[in-house]
Amino acid sequence: MIPTFSSRINQEPTSLDALFALSGRADLISFAGGYPDPALFPKKELNNAFENRIKKSSSEIFQYRSILGYEPLRKRIANYAETTGITCQPENIMLTQGAQQGIKLLAGLFLDDFDGVVVEAPTYAGGLEAFNDHKPTYYEIPMEDDGMNIDILEKTLEENNVKLIYTIPNFQNPTGYCMSIEKRKRLAKLASKHNVMVIEDDPYRELRYTGNALPSIKSFDLTENVVTLGSFSKILSPALRCGWLIGAKEIVDQLSSLRLSYDCQSSNILLEGIDEYLDHNDIATHISKLRDVYQHKMNAMLTGLSENLPTECSFSKPTGGFFIWVNLPESLDARELLNKTRKVTFLEGSSLFATSKETNHLRLNFTGITEKQIKEGCIDLGNTIKHALLSLAI
Amino acid sequence: MIPTFSSRINQEPTSLDALFALSGRADLISFAGGYPDPALFPKKELNNAFENRIKKSSSEIFQYRSILGYEPLRKRIANYAETTGITCQPENIMLTQGAQQGIKLLAGLFLDDFDGVVVEAPTYAGGLEAFNDHKPTYYEIPMEDDGMNIDILEKTLEENNVKLIYTIPNFQNPTGYCMSIEKRKRLAKLASKHNVMVIEDDPYRELRYTGNALPSIKSFDLTENVVTLGSFSKILSPALRCGWLIGAKEIVDQLSSLRLSYDCQSSNILLEGIDEYLDHNDIATHISKLRDVYQHKMNAMLTGLSENLPTECSFSKPTGGFFIWVNLPESLDARELLNKTRKVTFLEGSSLFATSKETNHLRLNFTGITEKQIKEGCIDLGNTIKHALLSLAI
Repeated sequence: MIPTFSSRINQEPTSLDALFALSGRADLISFAGGYPDPALFPKKELNNAFENRIKKSSSEIFQYRSILGYEPLRKRIANYAETTGITCQPENIMLTQGAQQGIKLLAGLFLDDFDGVVVEAPTYAGGLEAFNDHKPTYYEIPMEDDGMNIDILEKTLEENNVKLIYTIPNFQNPTGYCMSIEKRKRLAKLASKHNVMVIEDDPYRELRYTGNALPSIKSFDLTENVVTLGSFSKILSPALRCGWLIGAKEIVDQLSSLRLSYDCQSSNILLEGIDEYLDHNDIATHISKLRDVYQHKMNAMLTGLSENLPTECSFSKPTGGFFIWVNLPESLDARELLNKTRKVTFLEGSSLFATSKETNHLRLNFTGITEKQIKEGCIDLGNTIKHALLSLAI
Repeated sequence: MIPTFSSRINQEPTSLDALFALSGRADLISFAGGYPDPALFPKKELNNAFENRIKKSSSEIFQYRSILGYEPLRKRIANYAETTGITCQPENIMLTQGAQQGIKLLAGLFLDDFDGVVVEAPTYAGGLEAFNDHKPTYYEIPMEDDGMNIDILEKTLEENNVKLIYTIPNFQNPTGYCMSIEKRKRLAKLASKHNVMVIEDDPYRELRYTGNALPSIKSFDLTENVVTLGSFSKILSPALRCGWLIGAKEIVDQLSSLRLSYDCQSSNILLEGIDEYLDHNDIATHISKLRDVYQHKMNAMLTGLSENLPTECSFSKPTGGFFIWVNLPESLDARELLNKTRKVTFLEGSSLFATSKETNHLRLNFTGITEKQIKEGCIDLGNTIKHALLSLAI
């Protein structure tokens, strides 16, 4: 007989499970996932990179290597970080198994059971999953179209013991909202004042379709209270499983020990392959291609929603990223809607709230599907919502 | 200011840190690591495998894929498991980021704080690191040359609340000992009787240099109380970061949810690369080459130790694996010895005991170095021990 699982384990299927399950169904138009467009992966260039790097390397490329990850790649990321306002050295960087591992490691490093954790409402389900293991005391801060409400954050920090703030400042998952520069400054200052750690999760930064990039929150951090996470998953390929974490040396050193017990280290083959790709390709050119395609898809979805959603609904108008957030009238339940659509699936939003579990929201992804599918899906979604409202009125 | 770390975090450098640090010093002969011989990595064949597989695949090879990992590779592992006495389906298998991640995930799935965990004394440091996070109540079972003392295990299970037993049945890290078939049977029976989970960590199974392979502990498990871990790290390449975990579907399903919060999934590129390698190469032939080279190295070290260690020392005589375990007279401290050797480093054993922290043992690795280095290192080690004994006698 299998012994009982840990009391930390939530045996209910999680929203991430549901998301991965839905994403696999070929018969449906999936607004549910968070996948890049596979047609945009630089397949030939990546293949050349792996082939050339393995060919010219010694056998040591297949050996255990550094826990922090291949140093030349960390140097590149340090240089890139400069463009976001962050000054750091390779020793401040750990290459992680996706940005997800960075969240998990930081949760493990800082959290004791029941510690206070501030999250945006709504937020990324993978963040919540990583924190849940530590039985946190959650404080939800409402999202606004220029980022979380910092007045409420300030009050929360004054009145409660908070250890960690988790935020996605650029094109937030799931709302698509971007935090204003003023809020970034205030957030860094508040974290310093209240001695709170900030996880700045920033996988969508480079996927800005209009306007200018904003400095990272960490660029305003004078007291090492901010750790920034980035990733190649959305701008190159998720199967490279390569994210990064930038923080104080003291934090990165301690995470190295922790990392050993998690999975030892990233694959040196993948890290060197990425380094080789960056040697021979201009990733900026590649990213500008992504921006172009994704902007068209985003606009197609914004148009589709404008044309098809009833006026009782509202939705976010992002300037980048992967997602649009739809607010239904409170009388509608997004979970019920999910069973009523004919062709389209989406991520119903209740599981994206740490505590309030609001049931009248939908997260829609536009990157992983075609413009034709976006158009069709929006019509189906609009009809389903209109029908549900009509049934309600009867 | 950086907030305080979690109370779960051990801020002392761990033995794994020390090991990785020592392994990087080119001026030393390292008996300390646990590295395969890089000259034996099938570099050309692996390069061909990656190149061919990427070339003939769709772009989806670079996309997010299954959480359990590429199914055809899981099918192969299910077939391989048959040869170890295990009957399973691909759905019973998760591909992990090295076997280390398997230990960590299982610790996370089963352990509540202070739960009882049985470990061999000595044991693998990475196992202890993975459990330590859960503040376990450790029960040490002494190692014998045919595996842990099962009488003491039986008594321990009768008298205490134990949740998990962690064992390395083949060519144990660090002793090199192999568990007898009788003990495997008794262990499986006891786990079932007392409703305890067994982690059978088996990365060295294929590296047997003499004698016949023994059935896995899981082959005697009638009640799904055993999970078996394996890995390509020691038989193909550690940089592939590919291990596997075989267990009851209920366990694997629950681990899938947990895995999402850790790092989402393994790299599909690496998994398909391994699958392609296995399509075109006979790994059995490759492994028989490893066995031949490692057996010579092991014999060189056994001879070197016989010729150079004073009679007050004893050491294990393994028939496979990566390690030899040296017992010093109790008057000597292995940690002090480490500072006195001229050319050679080793892993001092105290950190490999969960609680007893015995200080008179050394773990020596013979795979990652040349026979010439083994010979030289044994002379240096012998001289250092003799000198230390002489100083003690004065």
